[in-house]
Amino acid sequence: MKKVVLIRHGESAWNKENRFTGWTDVDLTENGVQEAVKAGKLLKEQGFRFERAFTSYLKRANKTLNTILDQMDLDWIPVDKTWRLNEKHYGMLQGLNKAETTEKYGAEQVKIWRRSYDIRPDVIARTDPRSAHNDPRYANVPKSFIPDTEALKDTVERALPYWLEIIYPSLKHHDEIIVAAHGNSLRAIIKYLKNISDEDIVELNLPTAVPYLFTFDNDLNLVKDEFLGNAEEIKKLMDAVANQGNKK
Amino acid sequence: MKKVVLIRHGESAWNKENRFTGWTDVDLTENGVQEAVKAGKLLKEQGFRFERAFTSYLKRANKTLNTILDQMDLDWIPVDKTWRLNEKHYGMLQGLNKAETTEKYGAEQVKIWRRSYDIRPDVIARTDPRSAHNDPRYANVPKSFIPDTEALKDTVERALPYWLEIIYPSLKHHDEIIVAAHGNSLRAIIKYLKNISDEDIVELNLPTAVPYLFTFDNDLNLVKDEFLGNAEEIKKLMDAVANQGNKK
Repeated sequence: MKKVVLIRHGESAWNKENRFTGWTDVDLTENGVQEAVKAGKLLKEQGFRFERAFTSYLKRANKTLNTILDQMDLDWIPVDKTWRLNEKHYGMLQGLNKAETTEKYGAEQVKIWRRSYDIRPDVIARTDPRSAHNDPRYANVPKSFIPDTEALKDTVERALPYWLEIIYPSLKHHDEIIVAAHGNSLRAIIKYLKNISDEDIVELNLPTAVPYLFTFDNDLNLVKDEFLGNAEEIKKLMDAVANQGNKK
Repeated sequence: MKKVVLIRHGESAWNKENRFTGWTDVDLTENGVQEAVKAGKLLKEQGFRFERAFTSYLKRANKTLNTILDQMDLDWIPVDKTWRLNEKHYGMLQGLNKAETTEKYGAEQVKIWRRSYDIRPDVIARTDPRSAHNDPRYANVPKSFIPDTEALKDTVERALPYWLEIIYPSLKHHDEIIVAAHGNSLRAIIKYLKNISDEDIVELNLPTAVPYLFTFDNDLNLVKDEFLGNAEEIKKLMDAVANQGNKK
């Protein structure tokens, strides 16, 4: 059996401030670090021994991963970082408060921006200091690949090649893998693995820093998926994410 | 100009307990983490923008690096980890207290073990749970490469190929690199770069978590080397390392 654990980063400063983050490189809160510590302890207790890790180019995912690996005494394993696992790019919404945006544009419009499968927020101008085009970490990414905004559909289309070409084939050589990323880049992978429709995937609310285990047989067919940890706590965390648009 | 910063990890639990560590995977102390935070802040202030990082397979070096990159908001850069940058393997001394070892074997013998260039401590048996041969992280390393003990000469011989084949040539593609490793694996690199004799290299006491900057011209010739930070503080740290064998 082969195991892949997907994990969304812990609470970030902007989760807490209820702002659209996207590709903005905000830090974890102290609570977010503690969520990662807890996930690391749980994975260690359950006997996981990851051989390779994958994460995005964003600090909140990198730090969640580092904290987990530290707890597991697996600091030494190879870690691959990629822009393809970044959060959905929120275009001009990046930095705006979700509740204020709701007041201004109405709950329906915000829900569309947050949860429609293929409608994009307005673009962020390339001259805007917030644009990823002005960030040296994307200097080696072809210009045409760097988004100015994204719908979930776009995130799926740029995250999935990395799953298909890099992560999934690495199961030929490794038995246990961990992927620390973001709500929407993980939705991309889960949508594909579980064959979830465009309509249903937007309703999947991944809890922060809860390990989501996918088990494959030795022919690499998916046989099982399950969240690890206390079921009641996980439900609460999922509800909290679903309600974020309404919070003041 | 091309820049390489070498940095020795911050204080570890066994530095504090004054025990021979070698390949034992001990954690940083809280003080060690704070040393790394300080180094990260200094490097950020001085405008460094590392494009790639190298470290060992040992937690104290990994964590020093992660902490520095976090302070610099460079969590996203590629990090390569290798056993070749591990600390000198201390053979059967690993885990023993330095002062007690001094009492038992005499200061002269301990100085030989710690500071001779080519005399090895006795081997650690491969059946010993402390042996690296029983650690899954070295599963992909050829058996004949995994040491049972090392003199500094051995450490130089296994660390240097990594400098020559991987780190140094990467300066063709990168302008700024950081290497977070250990007292003796860094001695190996410095010995080579500065052409230091076998006798003199054992007297070089690298301070913990002080960035040591090597500057190369665009043809990759070394033009300058200097410690970064407060000169008086650095002197104190170097003296502290030199005196470790005598401490009770």
